[in-house]
Amino acid sequence: MNPEYWTSRATVRRFTLEDVPQELIDELLRKASHAPTTGNMQLYSVVVSRDREQLERLAPAHFNQPAAKGARVMLTFCADFNRFVKWCEASAAVPGYDNFQSFMTAVIDTVILTQQFVTLAEQSGLGCCYLGTTTYNAPQIAAALELPTRVVPVATIALGWPEERPVASDRLSTDAFVHHERYCDPSLERVKRFYEYKESLPESVGFVAENNKQSLAQVFTDVRYTRQANEAFSTIYRDFIASQGFAFPDDDK
Amino acid sequence: MNPEYWTSRATVRRFTLEDVPQELIDELLRKASHAPTTGNMQLYSVVVSRDREQLERLAPAHFNQPAAKGARVMLTFCADFNRFVKWCEASAAVPGYDNFQSFMTAVIDTVILTQQFVTLAEQSGLGCCYLGTTTYNAPQIAAALELPTRVVPVATIALGWPEERPVASDRLSTDAFVHHERYCDPSLERVKRFYEYKESLPESVGFVAENNKQSLAQVFTDVRYTRQANEAFSTIYRDFIASQGFAFPDDDK
Repeated sequence: MNPEYWTSRATVRRFTLEDVPQELIDELLRKASHAPTTGNMQLYSVVVSRDREQLERLAPAHFNQPAAKGARVMLTFCADFNRFVKWCEASAAVPGYDNFQSFMTAVIDTVILTQQFVTLAEQSGLGCCYLGTTTYNAPQIAAALELPTRVVPVATIALGWPEERPVASDRLSTDAFVHHERYCDPSLERVKRFYEYKESLPESVGFVAENNKQSLAQVFTDVRYTRQANEAFSTIYRDFIASQGFAFPDDDK
Repeated sequence: MNPEYWTSRATVRRFTLEDVPQELIDELLRKASHAPTTGNMQLYSVVVSRDREQLERLAPAHFNQPAAKGARVMLTFCADFNRFVKWCEASAAVPGYDNFQSFMTAVIDTVILTQQFVTLAEQSGLGCCYLGTTTYNAPQIAAALELPTRVVPVATIALGWPEERPVASDRLSTDAFVHHERYCDPSLERVKRFYEYKESLPESVGFVAENNKQSLAQVFTDVRYTRQANEAFSTIYRDFIASQGFAFPDDDK
């Protein structure tokens, strides 16, 4: 393995037409499943989509972003208490996992598995792109994948052999996100310094100009991740989680 | 790196007294921060606790489990919109991240970072233990770490040099959690077969006997992850998330 992998890796959004063998995906998922999991419960499932028809059904749920449209394979990682609850029911055990805490436990298990898979896949030469749209359009994704109750999509990986070799994108200095003993709440001045390098990048300057904005932060708040979208998708995701059997504390049961 | 790492890794709960240099932790976190993050927003922070006093304040929040009591260092990984919102405010941008969708986005970013850190730390010879209690007692943890609004603990890693070399624990066959094109909802009979191997392990048989239960599943439902605890901690975590500034859709604002 290339020791530079960790800091040189980058998201790949364009893929060749070459097939990704199912045996390889199974092997990577088998290895990834050795990642930590709460109480060894493995509260996740993965739906692998490679049929053209299924990929075309999923792409609109991911707003037809290029990585979704061009993926050879899409893997939808789901928080899953279905299998575990069935095991309880088959074992004279009465499960109590229809709640928010259990959902969060399954989400954490699921994201751990997803990231372990991404690392393994990238180290095998595959290109990966997380589709953050998974928590936006979970109901459409669940319909396409025929997810039963107690199963909620959390993350999707668009997968294929890289058609591009993107350079690693910038990251904040560790000073910006690592705190010692207690959280050191930074002043606005200090926060501005954390983001100076990012704002100076040609790509960032381009985003601001293209979108006719006054700052890079405005590209995030006004274009990419708006209040309106966040609030609408909050309601959709919350209602979907509840309808899949994970009640929020204030819900009527 | 040992190519067998992926399938031989195991959670370490007992640590030597040897120090874990802060420089090493910073280097591992720097590398881990190149993991994927939504829109390159890096919606997380990490609080590193190594002062004896702080570790003793945190241990009860993790129910004094041995890994928490014996850790040389504890890293609390937090979903964090504080820094990003401050950057918006310093940039004439109006943020809209006080909602459930934004919280979930930050949780996913946070768990990706955590798992990338764990992989890097384990590959450096360190031992790691996820403390699942982080989502139970988030208010106490936040108080000890003086977390400001918009920051919520999601995962904690107890870290140190291994005092033990545990063998890898069992995992379900990929057949149990990988689905092709559509979710194939297993029959109770099939689910029972998925768990047969786990149930047959001497450790599992021991758990059932020690707890005076009739099945391994009952150890989970009646002892380890009970309805009563899940429901109580659902309310606590949900209320804490809301009080930290991430409103749930039905909340009054």
